[in-house]
Amino acid sequence: MNEKSIERYDPFEGALGLSLATRVGSLVYTSGMVGFDGATGTVPEDLEEEIRLAFKNLGDILEAMGTSFEQVLEQTNFLVGDPTVVYPVFQKVRQEIFAGHLPASTSVFVQALVGPQNHCEVKLVAAIPE
Amino acid sequence: MNEKSIERYDPFEGALGLSLATRVGSLVYTSGMVGFDGATGTVPEDLEEEIRLAFKNLGDILEAMGTSFEQVLEQTNFLVGDPTVVYPVFQKVRQEIFAGHLPASTSVFVQALVGPQNHCEVKLVAAIPE
Amino acid sequence: MNEKSIERYDPFEGALGLSLATRVGSLVYTSGMVGFDGATGTVPEDLEEEIRLAFKNLGDILEAMGTSFEQVLEQTNFLVGDPTVVYPVFQKVRQEIFAGHLPASTSVFVQALVGPQNHCEVKLVAAIPE
Repeated sequence: MNEKSIERYDPFEGALGLSLATRVGSLVYTSGMVGFDGATGTVPEDLEEEIRLAFKNLGDILEAMGTSFEQVLEQTNFLVGDPTVVYPVFQKVRQEIFAGHLPASTSVFVQALVGPQNHCEVKLVAAIPE
Repeated sequence: MNEKSIERYDPFEGALGLSLATRVGSLVYTSGMVGFDGATGTVPEDLEEEIRLAFKNLGDILEAMGTSFEQVLEQTNFLVGDPTVVYPVFQKVRQEIFAGHLPASTSVFVQALVGPQNHCEVKLVAAIPE
Repeated sequence: MNEKSIERYDPFEGALGLSLATRVGSLVYTSGMVGFDGATGTVPEDLEEEIRLAFKNLGDILEAMGTSFEQVLEQTNFLVGDPTVVYPVFQKVRQEIFAGHLPASTSVFVQALVGPQNHCEVKLVAAIPE
């Protein structure tokens, strides 16, 4: 492996200070994604919609990297708010998305995300099918 | 690698919304584990016992995946409470467990874990011996 | 791969309870690093200096492991403080460091780090060039 073998997915060409995902060999690492709508510049007011949008963003990134939710090895979920309110909604959505191919998962409630309107930020490690 | 090459350890058959661990190639990813006693449905009241139970749970998972604490590459430790109280106890326990084969490690204090009685959640990445 | 194939970088010979980094195959995992000056035992009072020192420490670790910032796959950034104050400074520094080879990245604000004077702890996963 040499430096060229690291693939970086950065459609914003450096503006975010990060790549949306990187790949080396058969492993893909995503950035933490939130429920932000890039077209409108807004975060959905409804919590469930916000969480679904975060996963939609992740699904788009995985697809761009040549993989999918079926190939996710682990997710780390950083949540904000009252766990008794936020976690049941998060759990409902991610069980739908990963049904039949559940990744390892860690969910914790943090003080704040970078975007003050966001309640969830999810990072994934996925495999690439050969 | 094709999709079948991802191994998932999910003894709860989907009920938790996650696999306790996944494996691809020679890498194992565990879910974040807490000091929860599945037999009694309780969290130990004593902090040190709680932390030891979290590691016992992790050890069982690693064994089920064909690896062990000796093969852990990194641990990420999400802790809750007063760092001056919780970290010394955590440090004591994990130094025992990983003595002679210390992984890379990151420890941070978060707002809350999903289980309100828990003070530590630990996720591991381990290698599989060939 | 057998146990011997895990390389551990622990110049403190067990005293920290962790290795500063581990390597298996072509993947390197660092511990979460902070802006601590090992020579003076102090944390810089200036936030930007503190963040730069955390990255200097990480750069030294990557070098000891045979890799560099150019090969970083993902960074996870645990920050403390007011996001509107801390994140812009963090973003400025890491954009400099990773310009031209941006990793995937996740940044969250946590309750506390183990060291009460620290405002950022960064962990990296990097590849090793062959």
